[in-house]
Amino acid sequence: MRIVRPPEFKRTTGGFVATDAALESETGVGRAWTNIRRALIGRRLATAEEHSERVSKKIGLAIFASDNISSSAYATEEAMRILALAGVGAVAALTLPLTVAIVVVLAIVVVSYVQVIKAYPSGGGSYVVAKENLGVVPGLVAGSALLVDYFLTVSVSVAAGVAAITSAFPDLHPGRVGIAVGLVVLLTIGNLRGIREAGNIFAAPTYLYVLAIFGLIAMGLWRAVSGDLPSAPVPIQSFLPAGTQPLTLLLLLRAFASGSVALTGTEAVANGVQAFKKPEARNAQIVLVVMGSLFGTIFLSISFLATSIGIQPDLSETETVLSLLARSLVGTSWYFYLVQFSTALLLILAANTAFNGFPRLASIMAVDRFMPRQFAQRGDRLAFSTGIVALALVSSFLIVAYDASVTGLIPLYTVGVFIAFTLSQGGMVRKWLRDRSRGWQLGTVINGAGAIATGVVAIVVGISKFQVGAWMVIAILPVLVAMLYGINRHYRSIEDILLIATTVPVRVRPTVPRIVVPISRIDRASLRALSIAGGLGGEVHAVHISYDADGAKAFKRRWQSVVGETIALDTIISPYRALMPPLLKYLDAIDRDGPGRPVIVVLAEFVPRHWWEALLHNQTALLLKLRLFVRRNTAVLDVPYHLDDPEPLDAEGERPGR
Amino acid sequence: MRIVRPPEFKRTTGGFVATDAALESETGVGRAWTNIRRALIGRRLATAEEHSERVSKKIGLAIFASDNISSSAYATEEAMRILALAGVGAVAALTLPLTVAIVVVLAIVVVSYVQVIKAYPSGGGSYVVAKENLGVVPGLVAGSALLVDYFLTVSVSVAAGVAAITSAFPDLHPGRVGIAVGLVVLLTIGNLRGIREAGNIFAAPTYLYVLAIFGLIAMGLWRAVSGDLPSAPVPIQSFLPAGTQPLTLLLLLRAFASGSVALTGTEAVANGVQAFKKPEARNAQIVLVVMGSLFGTIFLSISFLATSIGIQPDLSETETVLSLLARSLVGTSWYFYLVQFSTALLLILAANTAFNGFPRLASIMAVDRFMPRQFAQRGDRLAFSTGIVALALVSSFLIVAYDASVTGLIPLYTVGVFIAFTLSQGGMVRKWLRDRSRGWQLGTVINGAGAIATGVVAIVVGISKFQVGAWMVIAILPVLVAMLYGINRHYRSIEDILLIATTVPVRVRPTVPRIVVPISRIDRASLRALSIAGGLGGEVHAVHISYDADGAKAFKRRWQSVVGETIALDTIISPYRALMPPLLKYLDAIDRDGPGRPVIVVLAEFVPRHWWEALLHNQTALLLKLRLFVRRNTAVLDVPYHLDDPEPLDAEGERPGR
Repeated sequence: MRIVRPPEFKRTTGGFVATDAALESETGVGRAWTNIRRALIGRRLATAEEHSERVSKKIGLAIFASDNISSSAYATEEAMRILALAGVGAVAALTLPLTVAIVVVLAIVVVSYVQVIKAYPSGGGSYVVAKENLGVVPGLVAGSALLVDYFLTVSVSVAAGVAAITSAFPDLHPGRVGIAVGLVVLLTIGNLRGIREAGNIFAAPTYLYVLAIFGLIAMGLWRAVSGDLPSAPVPIQSFLPAGTQPLTLLLLLRAFASGSVALTGTEAVANGVQAFKKPEARNAQIVLVVMGSLFGTIFLSISFLATSIGIQPDLSETETVLSLLARSLVGTSWYFYLVQFSTALLLILAANTAFNGFPRLASIMAVDRFMPRQFAQRGDRLAFSTGIVALALVSSFLIVAYDASVTGLIPLYTVGVFIAFTLSQGGMVRKWLRDRSRGWQLGTVINGAGAIATGVVAIVVGISKFQVGAWMVIAILPVLVAMLYGINRHYRSIEDILLIATTVPVRVRPTVPRIVVPISRIDRASLRALSIAGGLGGEVHAVHISYDADGAKAFKRRWQSVVGETIALDTIISPYRALMPPLLKYLDAIDRDGPGRPVIVVLAEFVPRHWWEALLHNQTALLLKLRLFVRRNTAVLDVPYHLDDPEPLDAEGERPGR
Repeated sequence: MRIVRPPEFKRTTGGFVATDAALESETGVGRAWTNIRRALIGRRLATAEEHSERVSKKIGLAIFASDNISSSAYATEEAMRILALAGVGAVAALTLPLTVAIVVVLAIVVVSYVQVIKAYPSGGGSYVVAKENLGVVPGLVAGSALLVDYFLTVSVSVAAGVAAITSAFPDLHPGRVGIAVGLVVLLTIGNLRGIREAGNIFAAPTYLYVLAIFGLIAMGLWRAVSGDLPSAPVPIQSFLPAGTQPLTLLLLLRAFASGSVALTGTEAVANGVQAFKKPEARNAQIVLVVMGSLFGTIFLSISFLATSIGIQPDLSETETVLSLLARSLVGTSWYFYLVQFSTALLLILAANTAFNGFPRLASIMAVDRFMPRQFAQRGDRLAFSTGIVALALVSSFLIVAYDASVTGLIPLYTVGVFIAFTLSQGGMVRKWLRDRSRGWQLGTVINGAGAIATGVVAIVVGISKFQVGAWMVIAILPVLVAMLYGINRHYRSIEDILLIATTVPVRVRPTVPRIVVPISRIDRASLRALSIAGGLGGEVHAVHISYDADGAKAFKRRWQSVVGETIALDTIISPYRALMPPLLKYLDAIDRDGPGRPVIVVLAEFVPRHWWEALLHNQTALLLKLRLFVRRNTAVLDVPYHLDDPEPLDAEGERPGR
């Protein structure tokens, strides 16, 4: 056989390589689409360029830490709000100790994840750790919990960012859902550009926030050391000095749970190890520790300064604790606005962490065949496009369904993350006890403490938020787990059926088919189908279905005069005007006549020049194809008729003059 | 070749005949669906049973006259409402003369249509008459105008009926759109049962109304003769004795136009001649005349009695003129309620006329290839199902869009009908003048008068209703005409391409194809595709596309060990992970290598057991099929792989144990 090589292909040892020219579209519309695509998400990246898409520690910190670091803007306040239920004294006395406790848990989680990264350098969040050490179901629970939380991260942080914007510009309030969805679209496009470009785009706000806050903290600490701290600003009206509830252990736990929102986002680095430049694991560990330290420092400093100054949370939610702190330290100056602006920006960009975490987790689960395999494929720019788009769709749906209300969405949030943390820490304990590798005693203590702490938080968050929405997350987890499991079972069962043992050589047995050509009318399209059917080397049965005996007779006469005796024709009269059922019975008879031989049904189809013209033709061929697809041992040969296809007739049959 | 005959087929001279057994479904779901269908719309009817579906004059009157006769319930009032603008005196003096004028126009229209039926016994409304005598464009204008008016007939009469119901039971008002759409669904099901059964279902209300009204009229005339007429009932507050406008010719014309709503529905009989038992034309003529006489009598009597009693229209729209008349003659007795109830019922059923007229008109236009050909096909019960369903969908859309408001819909109504009438009467004039057949002078006079009268009404209606909605109808007509014309041009151009001259014998030339089998993985599904491809008798090219050189090499090794050298394999490396573009370039090269020979692309597809499983597989095959459908000289052979398909391998390749 002669070798067929398109000019757009190069020859290499492995075979042909498609050059860039092979991807050029030949139509104007195709080229325009290529250009729009390129303008939006950039030029295509070859698989071999994957290493150049890896990110440095600097960019990696911006990408994977924005969610976590952004929570320092509200973590102190969230804890204070619960303590305020027990009165002014509780806030003043207990905020800092609680902060320390949360930072200790964070430290434990960070140290634990440093070890996870070492143990799972190919990228392993809670899903991998729980699955490897505790079993498939705990792994899937952790995975589903994280997937749900990623959806919520996007919805909540974009809604919160939009709320910040509409507080400043109330005119925009009616358009908040549209603005929020618009922001999700922008994040989607940014992330479809690939991780490195997304990092470049989104890095600035993280560093701006860190610098602004550190400036504020330095100022505050300097004034604290020099005994020059101001007192709390403007008295707040919505403030109950005595509190409304006694200071119980449960209240303390709830305050702890509220402050623990600070831990969301920690997972992302461990999941994204493979996004870092070499040495991946080492770089990821450094980023994780830097993130933890930055966050811990900011969180502790804010709690310390706020309680030292005597700030109490504003129960009317008019001004945030961070804003009160900044105003008491720098007044309503340009620096105050810098802090506020960078905070709002970072809160929106916290969603970007989910845009990195979700597609990566989904791709890991897809490789394990627990998610549809599209999630494991890299798009034009090597980003996991399916995951990015799926995340955008679901979180936009949540934004629309909840009318972009942070209050509505927040109760669903953080339960999932702590379930996943608990399972992952539990998994690490199991690993230490099983492997007994160096330092297993210390490891067991650290991860055991972490498991207990995050487990308690998970339970407290679950109970305290159950009625207002956490029940939905808890109810959806078993459904998700069952779905993921079903997906896996499906893929495995297909493999069982399709795969052939590799070791033995086999021989493909050519099978001569029987060919059936349904003909509704003798015209160029059906004659072309007959001409191709005749070239297939099997016996050809033409079939015509008519509504009455007169029609059948007329068709037979026409067949005799045009086609003659070369191809056998069966005519079927269908008194009820049904086409499909008689044809299927006919195919059954063909099957019985030569059992085991495949049946090929040849269908003539006219190709319309415009899409709307397709509506003007009966969709019989389409319905027939759908029906025959599920018929065993049957293949359908679709013969479209184009204007410029070769003439199927020998000379004499002329086109009418008309 | 041996004869293949399914046991469900009988042999006849013309070929096979599919018996009822051939239509039995083999699956439980299929049988359940058949049963549901049968319960809803009845058993299938064979084409040969068509004559038994024809209707008698009695049923035909009920089917085709309900729209026209129902307008007697409001025609007097509509005319009075305009006259009332000129004051009490105008109403009292001019209502009866105007009624007489409208009845004269009606008589002209009826007489004209009697002649139309004689001239076009195969069924011809304005569309046919205008097309045959004035040309294609006037025909299409008349057809489009009628199609639009049929949509509006359904929406308006169902909305009016629902308004009558919700006036009695205000609690139902919030559900009016749902009730209206529900009624449309009931009408649809009734009509899908076929014309005869629909007639049986819907005949009773027409006769009930006619009887109730004739009783009322008889009573009124008796009391008029015996000088015992009551005086007008309760004084009406919303009544302006002096009027607000001078009595101009334009006002008179507007009153005439408003009362002319009485003429809508006259068209239906002429369109539906073929629905009548033999002699079709004669029966249709009789029904038309009976309808006109019934309507004329009722209309004249109501106008006479109402003005004799001194009834004035209630401008607050609290009570209809018919209701006032009935109440003054019989008091608020059981007979009053009988009249009101039968009127409300008939108003809803007026929609049924459109359910007969629209599908018939659409089928006539489809036979002329101005509408998609599905409209010309008869369904299971010999009704024109596509037209019925299309009418139901569009009118439901109108009901929903206008929130079931009669006030909103009514301005769109009746313009279309009078445009169609004018064109049809004009067409008849042209016919008389051309044919000069017996009685052409009288015919010309009758139809000429009709053309002028209906033309004036069309202009008056168009102008007086233009701003409130008629502009939409007038604007949509050219669009519709262009669409119908485009449909026709498409069908004709296809014929030009596809049809082959009948007179010369031709010979189908078998063409040996070149066969390309894209293989993504070596498994049972792709080996089955190769085994069928190998049996087709052309040369087979297997193609594999991989993302990198390593993948290509590994695939080649596996191919060597499993398939060996029997089938040539080309591997293509696609660095950007694109599949479609390199494959298309490859096919181009195949084309260049053997020009003119068709290319068959063989696609292996796995058949999932459940529909949702299809989502778990890449839709690559589907996209490929769509793309190759528009590639010239290319056919696609779809080879589905089922669990119970024959093993494509010779013995050795065993299914793994797993």
